[in-house]
Amino acid sequence: MTLDKYLEDRRGLIDAALEKVVPSEREYPETIHRAMRHSLFGGGKRIRPILTMAAAEAVEPRVNTVERAACALELVHTYSLIHDDLPALDNDDFRRGRPTCHKVFGEAMAILAGDALLTLAFQVLSDLDDVPGERRIRMVTELATGAGTVNGMIGGQVADLEAEGKQVDAAHLDYIHRSKTGALIRASVRIGAIYAAADRAQFEALSKYGTHIGLAFQIVDDILDVVGSTETLGKTAGKDAAQQKATFPALYGLEASRDQANLHLAEAVEALRPIGEPSVRLREIAGRIVTRSA
Amino acid sequence: MTLDKYLEDRRGLIDAALEKVVPSEREYPETIHRAMRHSLFGGGKRIRPILTMAAAEAVEPRVNTVERAACALELVHTYSLIHDDLPALDNDDFRRGRPTCHKVFGEAMAILAGDALLTLAFQVLSDLDDVPGERRIRMVTELATGAGTVNGMIGGQVADLEAEGKQVDAAHLDYIHRSKTGALIRASVRIGAIYAAADRAQFEALSKYGTHIGLAFQIVDDILDVVGSTETLGKTAGKDAAQQKATFPALYGLEASRDQANLHLAEAVEALRPIGEPSVRLREIAGRIVTRSA
Repeated sequence: MTLDKYLEDRRGLIDAALEKVVPSEREYPETIHRAMRHSLFGGGKRIRPILTMAAAEAVEPRVNTVERAACALELVHTYSLIHDDLPALDNDDFRRGRPTCHKVFGEAMAILAGDALLTLAFQVLSDLDDVPGERRIRMVTELATGAGTVNGMIGGQVADLEAEGKQVDAAHLDYIHRSKTGALIRASVRIGAIYAAADRAQFEALSKYGTHIGLAFQIVDDILDVVGSTETLGKTAGKDAAQQKATFPALYGLEASRDQANLHLAEAVEALRPIGEPSVRLREIAGRIVTRSA
Repeated sequence: MTLDKYLEDRRGLIDAALEKVVPSEREYPETIHRAMRHSLFGGGKRIRPILTMAAAEAVEPRVNTVERAACALELVHTYSLIHDDLPALDNDDFRRGRPTCHKVFGEAMAILAGDALLTLAFQVLSDLDDVPGERRIRMVTELATGAGTVNGMIGGQVADLEAEGKQVDAAHLDYIHRSKTGALIRASVRIGAIYAAADRAQFEALSKYGTHIGLAFQIVDDILDVVGSTETLGKTAGKDAAQQKATFPALYGLEASRDQANLHLAEAVEALRPIGEPSVRLREIAGRIVTRSA
């Protein structure tokens, strides 16, 4: 199977699983479920849940129903987009090529829809009744840590907000990248590893992979915000410069940023060595993360 | 020990536990931790975590360290207050007698502080390493369900928002009350029961108790919004009428609302009968919920 076919196939499994875990638009109170679904089914690439699936497959090629666990990552990612796009934060009108949640449903409903997706993510993990409680709890810990304030996603968002318009140094930018995007991507990989009952060596190899592709992902995101178009990205391009965000291209220039992304790609691929053949998809995905144009 | 002494004692244990689980104001990024602590340590009554502790004690009088689990309830409650007070929702400037989170830290930080408290609540439950994984997972499920959209807190908030300025019927008001406040109070009691390894009969008795005091609590809240003062309540009084909220007094009048609260009190107390003596604190707390003036 080509990588594109693989990604399409996994996206299909994830979308079908999301369809099941998110209450339908006919379930009361309907508005909140419509708002959640508007943002969730707006055509995302599903990178995080695909990483969860590919990491589980790297540990146990015959793993199944991991897509239910993977949903939790997409729910958290989508909640973060909804809240990030609010007028009080990045104030963005477009996301994934459609109007943002608050543009369609109003700010109050967008805040609650984000809250609801975050809450549902933990419910999804706790509901995985084919996984022993001890492993489910480790997955909850990973998700909460990756999404939290100390070296997690919220911490990164705060550091990002506070860096706007300021001259930041390499250490500050590194914190933003590791936390804002890197932490949840790393958690995606680790949750897949836990799901498939990885042993210690596998878990450490996959964690290292997750750390490096998380960093590569954010560097490429920063680059695309400079060189991409709003149409291709499905979100407003050039926002970082307009908001004077702390980014890799702003601090190091485009070329050095591309070098950095490639360095992290190499480290990610190197980390997979002990796992060997079953990690081929993870290796391909790492490459795609760096070469993508959206 | 008198009830007042008991409540003071448990509040002390809960505050000490919260102090430990919430990152300090010196932890990077400091602003988010200051914002979380501003709202958390603003002098709440700690009703929900106290219910968790008292429920655990009703099952196992010698239970200990349940206050760590109980923190999760206060974290979720506080997140809901921060988001509820935002300009896009209830737009309130005072809470627990101090300026609301967004008044002090701005809207962006208040949104993220709420998100962070919700995330931390799940981390706290997953970190309870003296409780077997299977029981921790049941607690995560209870918290996510009680805080969620289907018959949970967010569902109630949405129904409440959508009822503003409209004539609602008894069924709609009942949904709002059961979900907006009742669901998390019921979850508080059930999480305490799970923590203490309640058997099926104990769990069902405590669930029934939790349902009725949850309803009584919200009815009394509605009554106090009419008859209380901003000073006593520590939040703006008379807001419900001003916002044309769906409330018990608005639909049934004050006297019938008091009768309803007393009826739920009687049902709550009746539910405790099979548990007997160890549930004396829960009985007293139910009484206090109905007779309180703030």
